[in-house]
Amino acid sequence: MLLNFEKAKPEEKSALKAEIKELRARLLAQQQRIRDAKLPVIVLLEGWAAAGKGSLINELINEIDPRFYNVTSPQVLPEAQERYPFLYQYASAIPENGKIMFYDSGWMEGAVRKYLHRDITRSQYKQRIRSIIEFERQLRDGGYIVLKLFLHVSQKEQHKRLAALKENFETEWRVTEDDLWQHREYDTFLETYDAFMERTNDPIKWHVLDASNRNQAVRDALKLLVKKIDKALDAGKYNGEPFKEDFPLIKMPKLSEVDLSPTIEEEEYKKELKKLQKRLGELHNTIYHKKIPVVLCYEGWDAAGKGGNIRRIAHPLDPRGFDVMPIASPEPHEINRQYLWRFWTRLPRSGHISIFDRTWYGRVMVERLEGFCSEKDWQRAYNEINEFERQLTDWGAVVLKFWIHIDQDTQLARFTERQNTPEKQWKITEEDWRNREKWPLYEIAVDEMLQKTSTENAPWFIIESNDKKYARIKTLKIVIDALEKACEAHIARGLD
Amino acid sequence: MLLNFEKAKPEEKSALKAEIKELRARLLAQQQRIRDAKLPVIVLLEGWAAAGKGSLINELINEIDPRFYNVTSPQVLPEAQERYPFLYQYASAIPENGKIMFYDSGWMEGAVRKYLHRDITRSQYKQRIRSIIEFERQLRDGGYIVLKLFLHVSQKEQHKRLAALKENFETEWRVTEDDLWQHREYDTFLETYDAFMERTNDPIKWHVLDASNRNQAVRDALKLLVKKIDKALDAGKYNGEPFKEDFPLIKMPKLSEVDLSPTIEEEEYKKELKKLQKRLGELHNTIYHKKIPVVLCYEGWDAAGKGGNIRRIAHPLDPRGFDVMPIASPEPHEINRQYLWRFWTRLPRSGHISIFDRTWYGRVMVERLEGFCSEKDWQRAYNEINEFERQLTDWGAVVLKFWIHIDQDTQLARFTERQNTPEKQWKITEEDWRNREKWPLYEIAVDEMLQKTSTENAPWFIIESNDKKYARIKTLKIVIDALEKACEAHIARGLD
Repeated sequence: MLLNFEKAKPEEKSALKAEIKELRARLLAQQQRIRDAKLPVIVLLEGWAAAGKGSLINELINEIDPRFYNVTSPQVLPEAQERYPFLYQYASAIPENGKIMFYDSGWMEGAVRKYLHRDITRSQYKQRIRSIIEFERQLRDGGYIVLKLFLHVSQKEQHKRLAALKENFETEWRVTEDDLWQHREYDTFLETYDAFMERTNDPIKWHVLDASNRNQAVRDALKLLVKKIDKALDAGKYNGEPFKEDFPLIKMPKLSEVDLSPTIEEEEYKKELKKLQKRLGELHNTIYHKKIPVVLCYEGWDAAGKGGNIRRIAHPLDPRGFDVMPIASPEPHEINRQYLWRFWTRLPRSGHISIFDRTWYGRVMVERLEGFCSEKDWQRAYNEINEFERQLTDWGAVVLKFWIHIDQDTQLARFTERQNTPEKQWKITEEDWRNREKWPLYEIAVDEMLQKTSTENAPWFIIESNDKKYARIKTLKIVIDALEKACEAHIARGLD
Repeated sequence: MLLNFEKAKPEEKSALKAEIKELRARLLAQQQRIRDAKLPVIVLLEGWAAAGKGSLINELINEIDPRFYNVTSPQVLPEAQERYPFLYQYASAIPENGKIMFYDSGWMEGAVRKYLHRDITRSQYKQRIRSIIEFERQLRDGGYIVLKLFLHVSQKEQHKRLAALKENFETEWRVTEDDLWQHREYDTFLETYDAFMERTNDPIKWHVLDASNRNQAVRDALKLLVKKIDKALDAGKYNGEPFKEDFPLIKMPKLSEVDLSPTIEEEEYKKELKKLQKRLGELHNTIYHKKIPVVLCYEGWDAAGKGGNIRRIAHPLDPRGFDVMPIASPEPHEINRQYLWRFWTRLPRSGHISIFDRTWYGRVMVERLEGFCSEKDWQRAYNEINEFERQLTDWGAVVLKFWIHIDQDTQLARFTERQNTPEKQWKITEEDWRNREKWPLYEIAVDEMLQKTSTENAPWFIIESNDKKYARIKTLKIVIDALEKACEAHIARGLD
C-alpha cells in the first residue's frame, strides 16, 4: 500500500531551506541543458484537496525562467459536459521539447473523481486506467520525462486546512462541495487512490510526498525532479524495445492479392450515389443527435482518388457537424511534440465527424521510409496506434480506415493526365514522381501496416479505386453500415 | 433598409443549374491561385433560423478541395458560460493564407441574439458593433477577403420550413426553443438585423440573399464569391491608408527624459517585497472569484530584467490562475495569419492572468525595424492595437503595459556579466549584440509607441530598472493598485 507510510520526522527548518536553495540552483542550471537536449518534462501533481498542490508548484517554478515551463489545470467536468475522449485535455497539453509542463492535478483525479461520483461505471474506470498506463508509456517512449507526485495528508490534517480556508473571507469560496465530500468520504478516497496508484505504478512510478510539512514536501519534490532530469540528460533519448499487446486483428490480404477490376456503370453509379448520400445525410442527423463521434481515416496511393472520395462523403453532411483534416508534413510546433499530439488536437467533438485526409499512419509509411524517425520509433508505432484507436472506440467513436488502392499503371495514367491538364497541374509535384519510384518499398510498409493495425474496433478497408466511382460507392456503403450499427448499439446500450 | 427587397423572380431551373456548374468550375480554378497568392478568404454566412445556411455552405464547398477550406460554427453561449472576450471565438478561427474559412453564422448572430436575449445591455451591444467594425477592417487591412452574406426568408417561409423540420422524426430535434422564439419575434429580429447591417455596412458591405429559392441563392452566393476573389487576385495585397481614431491618450515622457537613478535599499526591498506579494496573492483570489481577466504586458530592453520582474509578480499567484506567455518569433502557422491572431489565442480566461513576456508591440518595434512588415503595416498597427486593447477592456479586463527601462551602460554591464558567467551564457546571443547596435533606432520606435498607444484604458508604465529591485517593487505596486481599483469598480457596478 503506497499511502501507508510513516509521517516524516520534522527536520530543522534552516537546514531544509538551505537544501531547497541548493536544489533550486541545480534546477536553474538544468534549464539550459533541458533546452539544448530538447528534453520535454512532465510533472504530474496529484493529491488530496487542500494538500497544497498549487503552492507546491509555485515553489517549484519559483526560479525557473517562464520561457521554460507552463502550468495546466485540467478541469474535471461533469460527464455531460465532456465532448472529447478521456485523455484529450491531458494529451493536448503535453509540453514541447525543451519545456516543462506542470499538471496541477490531472488524469488520476479525472479518473478517480468521476468513478467515485458514479459518473462512469466500473468497467469504464478500468478502461481509463488502461488508457492512462498506455498514455504514460507512450510519453516515456516518445522521450518524455514523466514525474508523478502524490501529495498526501491525513484526514485530520485535511480537516485543519479546509477549516482554515473556510475561516478566511478571501479564501472561503475556494472550498468546494466536492472538497467537503472528499473529506467526508476520506476512507473511500484513500482506498481508491491507493488502488489506482498500485495499478498505474508501472512503467512510471509514483512518488508519495508527505504534505503535512510544506518545506519538506518542496525539498522532496525538487530532489526527485532534479534527479530525474539529471538521469535523463545522462541517458539520452529513450530507446527501449517496442511494447507489444495482442490486439484482436482482422486478417487482411496483401495489396498484390487485391483484385482491382471491379467497376460500376455510370447510370447505376448516379442512382446509388444519390440514394446513399441521402441515407448518409439522415444518419448524420442521428449521430449528431446521439452525440456519437466518428473518425474516418483516408490513406492511399497518390492520385488514387482520396480527395474525390472524401468529397462524396462530405457532400450530404451538415457542415456544422464535420471537418476535413488535411494532414501535411508537421509544422515545427508539431514536430516538437509526441507524434500523436497533432491528431489528439484534431479529434472531433462527440456527435461530430473528423475526416482525416492522411493520418497518424504517416509514422509507419513516409516517416519510416524517409528516415524521419528511428526504426524503433516506427516499430513501436503499430502498438501505440492500436492503443490510441482503442481509446477512441472506448470513448464511443466509430473509427474506420480506408486504404484507397490503385495499381501502378493507373497511377501513371493519372499522373500523366494531371501533367497535361493545366487546371490539374498543381496536384502533381516532383515529390509524387519520387514517391512513385519507391512504390515497392511503400507496398511492403503498407502491407505490414494493414496486417498489424486492422483491429476489430478500428478496421481497415481496402477500397479498389482503379474505378473511382466504384470506390466512392463502396466507401459510402461501409460508412453507412458502420453508422447504422453504431446507432443501433447506442439504442441497445440504453443510451437513448 | 437592406432587408426590404423584392422577392426574386423564379428563374428557369436548368439555366440556373448550368450557371451554378460554370461558377463552381471557376471557383475550382481559383483554388490554386488563392493558394499561390497566399490569399486568405472569409465567408461569413448569417441569416434567419431555417434559412438554409448549412446547406448553402455545402453547395459552396461542393467541389473545393478539402485542403483549401474549413467550416466553423461558433456557438452563441449563455453569457455566464462565456469566459473570453466577445470576438475571441471568431478571431481564433480566422483562416491562414491561401485558405477559405466559412463561418456558419458568426459575430452578427453573436451580437444580435445576445442583445435581444437581454444577455447584454444596449451599451454593450453598441460596443460589440464597434468591435465588429474594427475587426472586419483589421482583417481587410491585413489582406483578408471578407464576404458577408445574409440569408433572408419571410416569416411565412420560415414558418413553412420550421414546420417541415418538426414534422420529420430525424430533424425534429434541430428546431430549438431559440428558433421558435425568433419566429414569434420575427418583426423585432427583422428590425434589429436590419439596423445591425446598416451600422456594419462599412467598410465591408453586406449582401442579402433571397433564400426562398435555394438554387438562386446558391448561384448568387457563388457569383459574389467568385467575383470577389477575382477582384482581390487582380488587386494584390491591400495597401490603403492607415485608419486613425483619436483615442484618449496619456502623455508619456521620452525615454531620454526618464531619470534612471531611483534605487531601493536591500532591507527595505525585502520588507516591501514580502508585503506586496502577500497583498497580490490575496487580490489574485479576489479577481479569480470575481472573474476579472488581467493582461500584463512586458516590453523592454534586452537585459533590462523582464524575467526577474515577471517572476516576482508570478510568485504569489496561484498557478491555476495565471500563465506566462513567452513571445518569440512567430511560427509558420502564426506568420500565415493576421498578426494579432497569436495573441487572441493566448488571452486569459476571465478570472485569469496572462503575463506576456514580449507582446503584440513587436509589430511596431522589431517588425518595423527589421522590415518584417511594410511601412503601412506598422503605421496601421498603432490604431489596430488601441482597438484590440479597448476590446479587452470592454470585456472587463485589466490591461497594464510595462516598459522595463535601463540605459546603455547598464545593458553593457549586464551583457558582459552574462558573457562571463557560465550559467548565464545562454541568455546572451549574437542577436542581442546586434540589437544593441540599433539602440538609437529602437529608441525612436519605442518613443513613438509610447506616445501613440498609452491609452487611458490600457496605459503604459515606464519602469526604471537600472536597479532591478526598485523596478520590481514599482511594478508590484502598479499591479496591486490597478487590481484593487478593478475590484472596487466591480463592486460598484453591482456585479457582486
